[in-house]
Amino acid sequence: MDYYPGSIRNLIRTLARLPGIGQKTAERLAMHILQQPVEEANQLARSIVDLKKRLRLCSCCFSLSDDDLCRICRDPSRDNGLVCVVEQPADMASIEKSGAFNGRYHILGGCLSPMDGVGPEDIRITELTHRVQKEGVSEIILATGTNVEGESTAAYIAGILSPLGVKVSRIASGVPMGGDLKYVDQVTLKRAMESRHGI
Amino acid sequence: MDYYPGSIRNLIRTLARLPGIGQKTAERLAMHILQQPVEEANQLARSIVDLKKRLRLCSCCFSLSDDDLCRICRDPSRDNGLVCVVEQPADMASIEKSGAFNGRYHILGGCLSPMDGVGPEDIRITELTHRVQKEGVSEIILATGTNVEGESTAAYIAGILSPLGVKVSRIASGVPMGGDLKYVDQVTLKRAMESRHGI
Repeated sequence: MDYYPGSIRNLIRTLARLPGIGQKTAERLAMHILQQPVEEANQLARSIVDLKKRLRLCSCCFSLSDDDLCRICRDPSRDNGLVCVVEQPADMASIEKSGAFNGRYHILGGCLSPMDGVGPEDIRITELTHRVQKEGVSEIILATGTNVEGESTAAYIAGILSPLGVKVSRIASGVPMGGDLKYVDQVTLKRAMESRHGI
Repeated sequence: MDYYPGSIRNLIRTLARLPGIGQKTAERLAMHILQQPVEEANQLARSIVDLKKRLRLCSCCFSLSDDDLCRICRDPSRDNGLVCVVEQPADMASIEKSGAFNGRYHILGGCLSPMDGVGPEDIRITELTHRVQKEGVSEIILATGTNVEGESTAAYIAGILSPLGVKVSRIASGVPMGGDLKYVDQVTLKRAMESRHGI
């Protein structure tokens, strides 16, 4: 990269550390930023700094927020009795995009993974039991991932919560909508078969 | 995007304006930046601001540089008699990567394109003739693009330079190395046939 001056090399190197951005893309992005008006490039820089400065976790559900409580926890039209438990803020965003849920969330911040040394005290399970006890939650929907870690996290939380007398449910697994059966893996098909229901 | 707080929405919107970065990728990048240590995110912001602040054009060849003269123009081991004319700094970077050239460059900043209102006075042709007259250049290699605009720009510059008594050459066109003949377009094949040489 010697053919670029230091300031471009720096930016290319930094951009290439982002996920999914290789050397070539980083070069293309740097060249684009170079040709942008100063104001636009500065805005990009500012929004990166702002993000790290302003963003914190909602004190109730631990999702990303610019304030003490996130938009969803502040929303009076949300059903306080329903709490959907997810691993990461991005999972919450996916469920919100689907528009299928009108309750509130609880972000664990990960899932149980003994291989990586992540135990029950490393994700926000205690905080979840506190919420169940204090907030009069009627149903907890476990929407952790459907991989091994996500499944065992859901099973573990269900075991913790059941003595508290709250209804605990798990999102359904099966063949994705619009999916072609021949491309669906066997574990999913087995699950879809086991969870079949009358129509 | 209402499910993200304002500071993330801002960053996603700004990132999604970059070329080749769509909404999904912008979200993924923002989430990554969010999880980076503050120092790393700030460094990304700083290198963007730095780039716009420090970078200028080399006063001799008009390539990108952090100083008055670029690294190549300052390099005494470069052959001052050879000047390769390219459209953009990225073209120069490509030739440098190939390692096939040890002279200096001249960056036009574009190519003639009457359709877009780009005439000879809009690209750095006058500056090139000055260099030829002042710097004792022995050969000008025209490495503009091989599309219609690049070809006509090369032809135009050759016409301007030939009265100055300097040797003017054009990079060869033909079948790319490692290319399969059946995938090569007809114009390229025609050119490769016309420019055939004894072996």
